[in-house]
Formats: sequence, C-alpha cells, structure tokens
Amino acid sequence: MTTTRLPELSPETVASAARRVMARCDELARVTADDGAITRVHLSPEHARVNRLAAEWMREAGMTPRQDAAGNQLGLLPADDPDAPVLMLGSHLDTVIDAGRFDGILGVLMAIEVVRLLRRVDDEGRSRSPFPFGLEVAAFSDEEGTRFGKALLGSSAMAGTWDDAWWDLADADGTTLREAYREFGLDPGRIGEAARRPEQLVGYLEAHIEQGPELDRRGEALAVVSSIASARRFQLLVEGEARHAGGTPYDMRRDALLGASEAALAVERICRGEHHIIGTVGQLEAFPGAVNVVPGEARFSLDLRGEFDADRDRVWRAISLELDDIMGRRGLRWRAREVHSAPAVFCAPLLQDVVREGIRHSVGAAAEPATLFSPAGHDGMALGAVAPVGMLFLRNPDGISHHPDESVSAPDVALGIRALAEAVAHVGAEPR
Amino acid sequence: MTTTRLPELSPETVASAARRVMARCDELARVTADDGAITRVHLSPEHARVNRLAAEWMREAGMTPRQDAAGNQLGLLPADDPDAPVLMLGSHLDTVIDAGRFDGILGVLMAIEVVRLLRRVDDEGRSRSPFPFGLEVAAFSDEEGTRFGKALLGSSAMAGTWDDAWWDLADADGTTLREAYREFGLDPGRIGEAARRPEQLVGYLEAHIEQGPELDRRGEALAVVSSIASARRFQLLVEGEARHAGGTPYDMRRDALLGASEAALAVERICRGEHHIIGTVGQLEAFPGAVNVVPGEARFSLDLRGEFDADRDRVWRAISLELDDIMGRRGLRWRAREVHSAPAVFCAPLLQDVVREGIRHSVGAAAEPATLFSPAGHDGMALGAVAPVGMLFLRNPDGISHHPDESVSAPDVALGIRALAEAVAHVGAEPR
Repeated sequence: MTTTRLPELSPETVASAARRVMARCDELARVTADDGAITRVHLSPEHARVNRLAAEWMREAGMTPRQDAAGNQLGLLPADDPDAPVLMLGSHLDTVIDAGRFDGILGVLMAIEVVRLLRRVDDEGRSRSPFPFGLEVAAFSDEEGTRFGKALLGSSAMAGTWDDAWWDLADADGTTLREAYREFGLDPGRIGEAARRPEQLVGYLEAHIEQGPELDRRGEALAVVSSIASARRFQLLVEGEARHAGGTPYDMRRDALLGASEAALAVERICRGEHHIIGTVGQLEAFPGAVNVVPGEARFSLDLRGEFDADRDRVWRAISLELDDIMGRRGLRWRAREVHSAPAVFCAPLLQDVVREGIRHSVGAAAEPATLFSPAGHDGMALGAVAPVGMLFLRNPDGISHHPDESVSAPDVALGIRALAEAVAHVGAEPR
Repeated sequence: MTTTRLPELSPETVASAARRVMARCDELARVTADDGAITRVHLSPEHARVNRLAAEWMREAGMTPRQDAAGNQLGLLPADDPDAPVLMLGSHLDTVIDAGRFDGILGVLMAIEVVRLLRRVDDEGRSRSPFPFGLEVAAFSDEEGTRFGKALLGSSAMAGTWDDAWWDLADADGTTLREAYREFGLDPGRIGEAARRPEQLVGYLEAHIEQGPELDRRGEALAVVSSIASARRFQLLVEGEARHAGGTPYDMRRDALLGASEAALAVERICRGEHHIIGTVGQLEAFPGAVNVVPGEARFSLDLRGEFDADRDRVWRAISLELDDIMGRRGLRWRAREVHSAPAVFCAPLLQDVVREGIRHSVGAAAEPATLFSPAGHDGMALGAVAPVGMLFLRNPDGISHHPDESVSAPDVALGIRALAEAVAHVGAEPR
C-alpha cells in the first residue's frame, strides 16, 4: 500500500453523506407494492420508480445515469481516458417480501456518496474520476430472486453468464421473465448488451449490512469479507395420495405434508451437525390444502449454503439419502428441481487488502479488522465471473435482515462510507 | 318390525334407477369451478347451477322443488295431510377442492330415486307420499366447509342452530359469508326461515359412500351407521421471527415452519396411539414464504375426530401440551382458533333398525349387516339437533374419497337404493 490520492474528508462531510444515505433508505422504503411493508420485485412498477430515483441521485453526484439492457440502473463517473476500465461499486435495489430498508439499498446509496466524495471537477466543469479508471455505480435490478425464483438476474446479465433457459421462468401469476422484460420496456433480444468483458472492469466493490450477528456480537462496526457462500436452491415436490381426513385410517395414508415436515426437520438436523453449512426451508405448502383432506402433495423450497462447494454438495447428498428414507417409509415419491446454483466466490486478495486498509483508516482501531465469511449471497457472486470482487460488511444489530426490523446505525454508515472511499482510493494508488 | 307398504320393486326398475344416479353423478361432476377437476363451493355460480339441476330432477320425480333461505335445494312429496311432518332424505351437493363425484351427491340422487319409487299418484294425478308423513329430499348447500372453513352451514340452518358469528367468516378472497349470501340472492336476515322444528320432522335418513376402506375390506356392499364422529377443527398460528436464511445462525433462529412441522408430526404420533381418534393437518403454509427467509410465521389446520367427545377432547389437551413443549423449546408462540365443533351424533336406534332391515331385504344376506362408526362428518351431525338421524353406508373401493379416484359401483348403488327404499317403508310401517 502506498499513499492514497484521497482528498481529506472532514467528519462533517462524511456525517452529512451518511445522513443523506439514511434519508434515502427511508425514501426508497416508500416505493413498495405492499402498503405497510416493503416489497419491490424485479421488473415491477416499483423497480422502474426506484431506478428513476437512483438515476436522479447519480446525476446529482456527478455521474451520467443510464439503465442497461437488464434493467440495472448505472451511473458513470468517467476517467479522463474514455476507454479506461471502470471500478464498479454497488449493490441491488430489489427486495424480498416484507423486507427491511437496507439490504442492497444501503450499498447502492453508499456507492453514490463515495463517488460524490471522490469526484474531481475538471477545468470545463465536468465531473471526472480522479483515478486512471472510471468509477461506476451499479444498482442491480434483481439479486433476491423474489419474483422468478432465480436470484442474481441483474448481475448475471452484467457478468455475461445469462442463461436463455431463464426466459421461461414464470412468476406466481404465470408471467414469464420474457414477458416481464417486454412489459418493463426492455428487449430480451438485447440482453447481451448488458454484459461486460473482464478487461473493462478493474473490480467490483460492494458495501452491505452483514445480515448476521457476528459484528454486533464482537462490538465492531465494519468487517472485510473473505468469501461469499456457495449456494444451491431447490424446489422439492412430495407426492402421496389425497384422501378423506376422517375415513382414511393411518395405515392407508400416504400423507405428503407429513413427509415434507419430516424433511424440513431433517434439513435442520443435518445442517446443525455441520460447520459453516446452513439449510433453510422457507416455503412449504400442502395440496389440495383443505382442512378435511389428507394432503396428496406438498411442495417446499430448500436453500443450502456453505463456505465451500464440496461441503455443500456432500450435505445435499446426505439430505437426499435422508429424503429417500423418509419418503420410502411413508410410501411417498419425491423429486427436486435445482433452481439456483452458485459456487463460493472468494474475494480477491488485493480487494480484501484495500477494504482492510479502508476500515483501518476509518475506524482507526489498532486491532486487525474482522474478516468474515458471508453465508448470504450477494451480487459479487455473479460479478466474480468477470471481475475481482471485494466486500465491506456493516454491523447489523442483532443480525436481523429480510425483516422490517432490519437496521444499521448512521454512525456505522459514516464509518462505512469513509472506509469504502479509502478502499477505492487504495485501488487507485495501486500500480497498474 | 311389521310388514312394509313398499310396492314390489323389480330388479330392472332398481337397476335403471341406479344407472340414472350414476349418469347424474357424471353430469353434476361437470359443474365445477376448475377445469379438469371437481370443485364446487358454497354460494358459488356452480352451487346455483346444481341446485337448478336438482330442482328439475325433483320435479320430474314428483316433488315440488324450492330453495330455502340457506341455499339448500329441497323437494317435497307431501302426505295427504298437508300439516303432516316429513321424513327428510338427503345429503349435500358441495365439494372439497379437486373432489370425487359421489361424496354427498350420491345421497341426494339416491334419495330422489327412492321418492320416485315410493310415490303414489292420487286420483287427481298428484304425486303423494304413501305414508302418513311427507317425504322431503334435501340437497344441502354446504357440508364440507370448503369456502368458509366452517362446515355444515346448510344443515345447521335447517337444524335451527345457526350462529350469527358465522356471517363474518370470510373466504380466501376476503368475501364474508354475509356478502356471499347477498351475491347469491339470499337475504341473511331471513336465515331463520330455513329452520325446522322437531315436530315437523319424523327423522333424517342419509345414504353416503363410506369414505373409508372397511366395507371394501370385508367384501360387503352396505352398512348401518352407528354414530357420526365427534369433530373439532382448529386454525393454528405459530409465530417466530422472519430472518435472513443465510446470515442467521441456527442458535438465533425462531423458525415458525419447523415448529409447525414438529406439530404436524406430533398430531400423527399422538393420534396413532389412540383408538378411533384421527387427526389431520390438511393445510400448512409458511410466511413470508420466500426461499431465502427463515419463516417468521406458519399457519396450519387441525381436523380432529373421535367416536366419543371425551376422548377427542382429552387428545386435544394432549396435543396442546405437546405444542407448548415444541414451541417453548423453539422460542415460538402459538395459538389456536376453533373454527368448528360438533359432538358425536348417535344414530337413533329405530333408524338403525330400519336401515338394517333395509339392507337385509336388499342384500338378502343371512349374516348380520355390518355396523360402522363414521369418522367422517355428515349433515346428520347438524340435523341430530332437531331430528332422529339414520345413515346407510355404501362400499367405497379402497376407501378413496375427497379425491378424483373416489368411486362406487352401479350394482352397489342399486342395492343401496333398494335398502334405502325398504328402510323408508319400514319407518312408514312403524306405529306412530
């Protein structure tokens, strides 16, 4: 690490940036499909509205905004050389159902503030990157996968790893991704235009709330991220026989819901016995779903994450064997459809170093900043295919996320903005 | 038992009646809200259509049809004395979701055939009951409780046990029972007009498929019913905390779905250890229901039936204690709302006797006809409040009911029609 070219940032400037971020998190929280809750899914009218707000804020921070072919909202602060690559900063603006107001959103708004703090105004009054590379803020259009089941649609398009099979994914109303693209005003045939090539990207840096309790337990504000979990998602189907709830003795029942219930408990039991493996059944439904009918069918989801792909895959095999046993005993059939798979992404050593330096400068602690593994998925999982990835975590009180009580403090956001700005400056100071 | 006044029924006449019943079961199966499945709920357009069909068939069999204040379709074959009480015959025309074509429907259509076989045409060409009481066929409007969760709405109105609290029950779309009544063209303020007084009813006789495997296992066509199960239905709510599926370690989770899964398995375990007690969780759903969110809430139904009220209530207390334990261990809260409760209804000894005589005459077996307890609920549970109740069960291959594969054979239906007609004639022969 050498000296950075970062202008001195006064505490007042950074605190004011943090206040703006907090106020804008509140403003975005009002853009929702559900009264009294935050729900904002891919290619919805709410998606269009937050893109317009983000574009306005990007422009006001000196960037040139545009929406790409995947509905990602981008803002560019160019280098002097228009052909120079960019360092991408960002996160996503879509949410889960009944979400908190910081997951993803915070990273986008912090990135906008970092660009505002770092930009240089040239002799002709134009905002420029002070580095030999441009700075670009990305507000990804889909990270959660709430609407179509498949996560990371926005960042996958940018990474050039789009799979045309996704066009036929349908939402709960039966609208396909292809149709939703058109309704949103996007042309599915142009999805390739969203893709970046490795030589166009210096790297991707993202700030995000931890979505876990570790920093809160340690009493620290910020952490370097070492890697992003390996994840697989499945939709499972259990088939038995729908029968009358009164007249069918237990020995004649093939109750799909009881099979699914045992399966959900088996996932918990198996994963609890592992280190850094976590499995969650977030959806479960019984069919036909009548109070007086033995369920003939049950569907449930499985979200399986691990620090290492091999451990995750070994656990999935163990779960599969257990399901064979449960369903066999109960006279049920089962099958799983994999709807998402992403290998673990390891943060680039250089970007881990600059984030660590940024935290040191910001927090000023003598102690080594915490380094955490992220069980939660992030856009960097997709971007890792095309750029080195680095991440900064912010303390998330009690680790509550994907919930209205999700929170982050303004002082931590100020520390995070300074750390992220320092990290960017460190990238700028690296020999290229 | 004395001699009956039943006219000799030729095998051809009865077989032809059975064929008509089977054809009409097929015809009613086509009146459904779901293409490719049979779903016909209370106060729906399909309900109106089957009432019109039943009215036409009642008229054609000599009855005077009318729809009562609860949407029940009735057909009266009066006695010579217009003030004479009636023997009610019937069942229901509503269905569960993705139902079979015989549950309830068969009993209504068999009752119409029995009236056709027994009616006397007087000197003025009018159809009359040959007995000192009228015969009335009831096609009840709601037995299953599919739409509003509360079962037996049609027969409860006739029994005069209507509870005004039911008006606020809402269906899945939020339509209340009160609103649905008005949309159907019924006046909620006139519900009392559907009620009968005990002195107006000689009794209630119903034929129904067994909805269980017992007759099929024994190789017998028909059975006398001794009693109808005591039943309670609950909607249960489990509350935990919705959290991010990746970032929340197991020791911080309060996963409502896992609590509900354990509960469903506990119901099975506890009820299997009992005699003539059966508990079913037919509905279960997790909220917010996202693949990557630990469920903060789960809702499920419990249907609990037993031959005796006291056993059923003791088992509910045992389940409640088990739920306290499960939810306590998992840091969850739970509560139950009782949505239906009906005491066991014992069939009247006289009506058991006439049904047994009817079976003997019809099947001609030397052996004593089977006598079965019905774990499934029936309209007689409500009618029991105002009339003696009797029931005849028909063999239900493999016991499959509440399912498209539900079946009954035409020869068994012919045996059943003859047995039911004989049973009615035996009532007519009793000293009054």
